[in-house]
Amino acid sequence: MSGIVLVPVEGLPEVRAGDVLSELIAGAAPDLRDGDVVVVTQKVVSKAEGRLVRVDPSDPQSHKPLVEQESVRVLRRRGELMITETAHGFVCANAGIDLSNVERGWAALLPVDPDRSARRIRDGLRARTGASVGVIVSDTFGRPWRAGVTDVAIGCAGVAAVVDLRGSTDALGRELQVTEVCVADELACAAELVMGKSTGVPVAIVRGVDPSWLREGSVSGEVVRAHGDDLFR
Amino acid sequence: MSGIVLVPVEGLPEVRAGDVLSELIAGAAPDLRDGDVVVVTQKVVSKAEGRLVRVDPSDPQSHKPLVEQESVRVLRRRGELMITETAHGFVCANAGIDLSNVERGWAALLPVDPDRSARRIRDGLRARTGASVGVIVSDTFGRPWRAGVTDVAIGCAGVAAVVDLRGSTDALGRELQVTEVCVADELACAAELVMGKSTGVPVAIVRGVDPSWLREGSVSGEVVRAHGDDLFR
Repeated sequence: MSGIVLVPVEGLPEVRAGDVLSELIAGAAPDLRDGDVVVVTQKVVSKAEGRLVRVDPSDPQSHKPLVEQESVRVLRRRGELMITETAHGFVCANAGIDLSNVERGWAALLPVDPDRSARRIRDGLRARTGASVGVIVSDTFGRPWRAGVTDVAIGCAGVAAVVDLRGSTDALGRELQVTEVCVADELACAAELVMGKSTGVPVAIVRGVDPSWLREGSVSGEVVRAHGDDLFR
Repeated sequence: MSGIVLVPVEGLPEVRAGDVLSELIAGAAPDLRDGDVVVVTQKVVSKAEGRLVRVDPSDPQSHKPLVEQESVRVLRRRGELMITETAHGFVCANAGIDLSNVERGWAALLPVDPDRSARRIRDGLRARTGASVGVIVSDTFGRPWRAGVTDVAIGCAGVAAVVDLRGSTDALGRELQVTEVCVADELACAAELVMGKSTGVPVAIVRGVDPSWLREGSVSGEVVRAHGDDLFR
């Protein structure tokens, strides 16, 4: 298998409500190729989709009612931190709402349907550049038991979320026990390595992924666990 | 920021107890450069360190006593699956023991001290190639709430596990709220994209990472959460 290249997409303008992300990305990354995976951070998707709400900048608690509104369940609460389940089925801090990289006095909510957001960007990029790419909408989540945040996929289109290796054999011919790999989350993590958190680069290209991963995909359908399958809800 | 390249290291021989991994890796990847991060899967580290034990291949339960032995606590149990905490403080399925990519009749335990394993590989690579590289020992873990496994770092040397962005400002000049990124896990995920699970490529190189990450690092010291800091133990 050959290598993969991770390329940050620089020079995007500040994104505002109503902007067409595929147009901005196509302008900043004109050499998109078939089979590329374009990873776009949630923050710019939420901005383009107008998912911004007013908060009181003098009150660090003023987004808490939004957290309740955007959550279907609170799993844990400690001090200012709430771990909740969103309507999408994501479990994360403060319903995915945060205030960084948003203008003072505003908070960004998660997109209503991040798979649909990814599809819209994918369709727009194909129309504008002719390239058939996969698109992942990524966000930054904490996790239990391990310190530090990592990026995860909250939506995808044109690329698998989970690749099922069931029935494959390992290098010694034994059937693999661990069979389902969440490549969408691994792609989001890889892209984050070239985005950084403070450099203002909200889009990256992953070039050279296994072509078999480039099929219709869905985070809501493949990654969000049914409650009955989950030992930690 | 410029791009990152992920390169699989192919042509490694089947690893056996007593093998010196740095020698095998230096032989298969002779063009290692200062600042590369070399990601090595746990399975070959465990093999080289002789962490293999006999199991009865006709009894799919025969490794269960090993799981108990390698665990300090059982968090969840359902059917054949046990989610346990290992002596290292990792929370994972079956204490990280699995049977894939191991000869029939054997199971591989996690390395005793994966940070030390990483240091040994790093020191050996420097002695053999002259290159000062970071090393990550990776393994494949499931996680709550999200389907599919992803790779994580269980040990590291010469590269940060968690990068603290506290005090940085975002692109709009606001102080960042989410400040600690587990780059070691993101590097493990990125490397997995070129390893695959069934291709028998147990080593990959990540070239082009932020040079500020290349410092002494430790998964046990930076990633494993203290019990009191964790809302899900």
